[in-house]
Order: sequence, then C-alpha cells, then structure tokens
Amino acid sequence: MSVTSAKGFQAGGVAAGLKPSGDPDVALIRNTGPLDAAAGVFTTNRIKAAPVLWSQQVLKAGRLTAVVLNSGGANACTGPQGFQDTHATAERVAERLGCGAADVAVCSTGVIGQRLPMDALLPGVDNVVESLSDDGGEAAAKAIMTTDTHPKTTTVQGAGFVVGGMAKGAGMLAPALATMLCVLTTDAVADTDTLDAAVRAATARTFDRIDSDGCLSTNDTVLLLASGASGTRPSAEELEAAVTQACQDLARQLIGDAEGASKEIAIRITGAASEQEAVTVARSIARNNLLMCALFGNDAYWGRVLAAVGTTDATFDPDQLDVSFNGVRVCKNSAADPDAPEVDISGRDLELGVDLHAGNAEATVYTNDLTLAYVHENSAYTS
Amino acid sequence: MSVTSAKGFQAGGVAAGLKPSGDPDVALIRNTGPLDAAAGVFTTNRIKAAPVLWSQQVLKAGRLTAVVLNSGGANACTGPQGFQDTHATAERVAERLGCGAADVAVCSTGVIGQRLPMDALLPGVDNVVESLSDDGGEAAAKAIMTTDTHPKTTTVQGAGFVVGGMAKGAGMLAPALATMLCVLTTDAVADTDTLDAAVRAATARTFDRIDSDGCLSTNDTVLLLASGASGTRPSAEELEAAVTQACQDLARQLIGDAEGASKEIAIRITGAASEQEAVTVARSIARNNLLMCALFGNDAYWGRVLAAVGTTDATFDPDQLDVSFNGVRVCKNSAADPDAPEVDISGRDLELGVDLHAGNAEATVYTNDLTLAYVHENSAYTS
Repeated sequence: MSVTSAKGFQAGGVAAGLKPSGDPDVALIRNTGPLDAAAGVFTTNRIKAAPVLWSQQVLKAGRLTAVVLNSGGANACTGPQGFQDTHATAERVAERLGCGAADVAVCSTGVIGQRLPMDALLPGVDNVVESLSDDGGEAAAKAIMTTDTHPKTTTVQGAGFVVGGMAKGAGMLAPALATMLCVLTTDAVADTDTLDAAVRAATARTFDRIDSDGCLSTNDTVLLLASGASGTRPSAEELEAAVTQACQDLARQLIGDAEGASKEIAIRITGAASEQEAVTVARSIARNNLLMCALFGNDAYWGRVLAAVGTTDATFDPDQLDVSFNGVRVCKNSAADPDAPEVDISGRDLELGVDLHAGNAEATVYTNDLTLAYVHENSAYTS
Repeated sequence: MSVTSAKGFQAGGVAAGLKPSGDPDVALIRNTGPLDAAAGVFTTNRIKAAPVLWSQQVLKAGRLTAVVLNSGGANACTGPQGFQDTHATAERVAERLGCGAADVAVCSTGVIGQRLPMDALLPGVDNVVESLSDDGGEAAAKAIMTTDTHPKTTTVQGAGFVVGGMAKGAGMLAPALATMLCVLTTDAVADTDTLDAAVRAATARTFDRIDSDGCLSTNDTVLLLASGASGTRPSAEELEAAVTQACQDLARQLIGDAEGASKEIAIRITGAASEQEAVTVARSIARNNLLMCALFGNDAYWGRVLAAVGTTDATFDPDQLDVSFNGVRVCKNSAADPDAPEVDISGRDLELGVDLHAGNAEATVYTNDLTLAYVHENSAYTS
C-alpha cells in the first residue's frame, strides 16, 4: 500500500516522457494534514545533486506539504541551471497545490550530468497533481524506478498509527545511505524533532547497513512526513521502532533487487570490540571484489574473507579469526578447520559469519555478489 | 634479463609439481657477493602469510644470501604448521647453499588457506639449486607466475652498476603494495640502510600507485639485494633513481597484465592541495566499480568520476571540478562542458584527468577497468 497506507496522504505517478521507455517517471506525494511535520537524511557525498541541495534547505523549517520525485535523470552535476530546474519544479507543484515552493521537497534519480527536459517535466507535474488519489501509493512507487525490476513499498502497523513507505534503488548502494530515494509517511501525531530522531536512528541501522557495490550516490534521500491524521501520538520509541521496521523492509528489498546480483549476502560480524568495528569489518568484506566474485562462483573462499578483514584496523588477533558460511565453520583460528564438512553456498541467500574474538559487539551488513550481469548492466548504463 | 642482469647473482626456476598444470613453480635467487646487503617492504595487511612473517624476521639483520619463491600456494592462513613449512623450506635452501636459514627469504603466491605439499616442494628446492645459473633470471621469473600471462622482468643500467628485477602479480593489486612478489637485484656497492631507503622510496611512488581492484593481499613482498659485484658505489640518489625506474617498469607491466582488464587507465589528479590528497582522490576513482564498468563499456561517464571524488575528504570546492578523458575536457565547474567534442575512449590506454583547483600538487594512480573477464576469472579461481 506504500506511502498512502497512512491516513492523510495522497499520491500519484505519471509518465512525463523523461524516460525513453515511456514508463512512469514523475511521482507526487501530498500531505493533507492536519499536520505537516517532516524530517529527512541525505547523501554524505560532497557532490550533491541539485534536488538534494534544495530539499536540505527547505527541510530546515521541519515542514513539508509535498514531495515531487522524478526518475529519468539525477539532475546532479548540472550547475546553477540544474538548481533552477529543481526550484522551478517545486514552484510548479506549489502553484498547483496552493502552497509555497519551500513546502515542497524534490528528489531525482537517473543519469548524472544531464539537465532534465523541463518542457516534459513541468507538464508532467501538472498531470501528476491531477492524478493524486488516496490509493496512489503504488503508482508513485512505480514512477521512481530506474534499474529496479519492481516497485518497493512497505506498510508497518503501529499501535493506533501506520508507517507507510516506498523506495527505489538497485545500484550505487553504499555506504552511508545506500543509494536510493525513500519516502516514508505516517499518520502518527509527531513533531519535527521526534521525526528527525526516528529517521536518523532508523536509517543508521538499516539503509546504512546495506552495501551492494560500495558506491555512494549524489542523490540519496530519505524523507519522513507526518500527517497526524490518526490522532494517535506514539512514544518516540514506538515511532522509531515502526520507522525502523519500515526502513529494514525496504532496505532488504533493495538488496534483493540489486543490479545483476545472484546472491543476497548477510555478513554477520560477532565478537567485535564495538558495534562500529563490527560494521567496519563487515563493510570491508562486502567491498572485496575478489571475494564477491568467488561467492558468485559458489566458491566458499574464506581466505579472501580473512584478507579483507586484515585490511581494517579493528581489534582482533590475526591468528584468532573464525569464518563460517551458512553456519558451517570453515576457518578456525585463521586456518582451515580440519573438521569442516563440505559447505553448499549455491543458494541465493548466504550468511557469512566472522567471529573476531575481541568482544561482545556485533553487526550485520547486507550485500550482493559481483556478477557478470552487474558488469554488463553497468557498462551500458548511459549509452 | 631479470634478476641476473646484475653481476653477482644466479637464479633458476623449476617445476616441482605444486601447480596442477605442471608449469614451473619454484624459483631461487642466489647472491654470490661479495656483499649480501638486503632490504624489503611487505604487505600492510594484518593477515600476513607465513613467508611474509618469516622474511620480515630474517631481514632484520639486513642480509640475505638467497630468496626462494613458490607459486601454486600462498601459504597464508595455514597456522603454525604453515610457518614451519616456510622454515623448513628456508632450511633446505640453506643446507644446499651452505648458509644459514636466517640468510634465506621466502615468498609464496597462490591460493590462500591451503598448506603447501612439502613432499613436492622440498625436492623442488633441491632441483632449483641444481639449476642455478648466471642467466637463470628468465626461468625464475616464469616460475613465480600465477594468473600472469607472461613473466615480468626489468633491467636498469646505472652509471657503473645495474638494477635487475622480476615481479609477478595480476590480481589483488592494491593498495599499499599492489599484490605481488618482486625481487630486485643490484651489483652496486650499498649498505643495508641505503638499500632500505631506496626500496621504500621507490615502492611508495610505483607499486603503491597501482590499484587494479582495491584488494590488498596477504603476501606482498618487494626485496632488494645488493651483491656489490660491480665495484661501483652510486650515491643514494642514483641508486634510488635506478630502483624507482625498475619498480615503475614492473608496476606498469603488472597493470598491463591485470586479470581480465581491457584498459590500462592512468588517473591523473592535478590542482590538489597535497600529493597525498591527490593519491586519495585517484584511489577513490580507481575503486569505483560503477565507473570502472562504464569505462569497460567505453562510456566516458564523468558523472561517476565526480561521484567518486565526492566521497573523499580532499580539499576542493564541489562546484569547481574539471574532468578530462584523453586530454579532452568533458566536465568544467562540475557540470557538462558545453564545448566538449565527442571523446573516443575505445583504445586500451586511457588517461582520466581531474583538476581539483585546490593547489599545485598532483599524482597519478594506474588502474584497470572492471570487466566480464575479471568476474569470470575470479569466480572460478580456487575451483
């Protein structure tokens, strides 16, 4: 049910002609209130797309009436004109909805470095406003897809309130915010500070823990809008839990649909001195091309796991590492486990475990294998 | 002419049966003096192979009589038994040459996590000692190949002295020491401290500046041995220059033969606030899978270059970056250069330039594209 699962939201998606395929490429989400509190997190890449710069600015007021999103172009590295294009898009939405441009966030995704065709986009905005409906969440989720093979949506039922959401993302998935656009809606009664805390805590342990290909995008955006339409004011903890659940659901859907992937890999680090060190080790493993090729070949090559762990400065004794695949320990004390049975890693889901024997902290990072299809898809993206 | 280009060295290479293919897999280099000064640098991976731990230890004395190398097995992650195997190999060389085991460095390369078949390796040591000759450098260079398609050797003529060398390496090429074994020899008269300074300075600007796939190995080793047989004592600067030239020649050969690569890419960062920042930016670009796939597809996708630059903390204004391919500026002030002609990047050699406009420092890092052949080769390495 997507972003319209929560009361107080309308959504829509239309084809404006930004994509050569003619598929839907403009989405709109409108908060009909009574509240209009909002918060968001953005890419940490220093090269930020125009819509990211715009949305960061308007979110400072902690309020949003609408979010307009387009696929078919990232509007990144497009100079001052690109920023004007974003501004003009927000202005057009504002005119049609009767609010101010500063009440409208903008998200874009697609190829970097090309300006958006505004003569197609602005009429698309008019059309998407016309298409707004109480059950338009699915249409909106479809319109933000790029190389995604299916729309990603979620609905989490809280005690008297709902969190709904949609996301897109299939490549450039890493590291601090997997590359993606995500809009979350809730009919809970909540102020901006509570929403801000919830979205930061939720993304830190979900989207920040998926690392498909180590590439950080210029456009990553996660927005959380509250309408208050349920009349229920959950505690901060309740709200954070529901938002986290929604983010985790969407994050797993992103990894499940990552470009060319043949495996969904959970890298679980245990025995770490701290949670941060566990994440560091897991990320190093997730980004090791040689290992990710081996896993694509169904080769449980634990030696490359250790080689990746050894590049980090995490706390561990180089002679005391254990590695397991799907729960079968294949490496004990940093050498082959002589008692290990043959391990089958031919399935799509794989759990790769490393015990650092350095403490009690743990963390899991989700990634994908490096496949022929990934290289093929990404060698022919703009052309 | 390899390691025997310099006077005072013998070398040989034989097939001991470590490789299923039956190709040569054991090499030996002997310093016949009159000097036996030596220095070396090793992988910074905290997971170090047994031969690395051994060679680091014996090199503390600053002297080496011989270096024995094997392909067909890395002897990494093999526990205390693995270290004993390295020790036994050095002992066998020492017995046959009439020196001490502590005068013998050991290098290994191949699959991680499996013990070496000592019943094949030790007779191989006997045979390679028998094969030693004044022109055995080529045979030695062949015996250390793994996925290399050809042996890599070099000879640099100094003023009255020679630096010879051999190297292997085609994958796991990064970052601080591209993954590799390299033995350099010189007939110059030089003490250990001078050799140590020369090999550190030379590798820092050559092997440390190639980054094929971002994967740091457990076995990287660069050794420099001096026989003094020329009777010439070059200045420290002269020696460093010759050793650097030899390393640069071998480093380029490694990139030229990297697994599955279809391009040799020089990433040249100019306008950096410091040389170190230039290297950081170049390395971030070299490791961006999405960009390296695009280049494989002959797509001059400069937007992914900027996305990679933006993940670093180097000094630059996000709105002031220029990008060029083969000297053609395609991006100016972080946006498409409207005056840029079509650029052809279909050749094997590619120069990718980024001007940070933040200072006068520069650096070049060499890398390869990410290809279908790379994934194919590395998905079927141990099996």
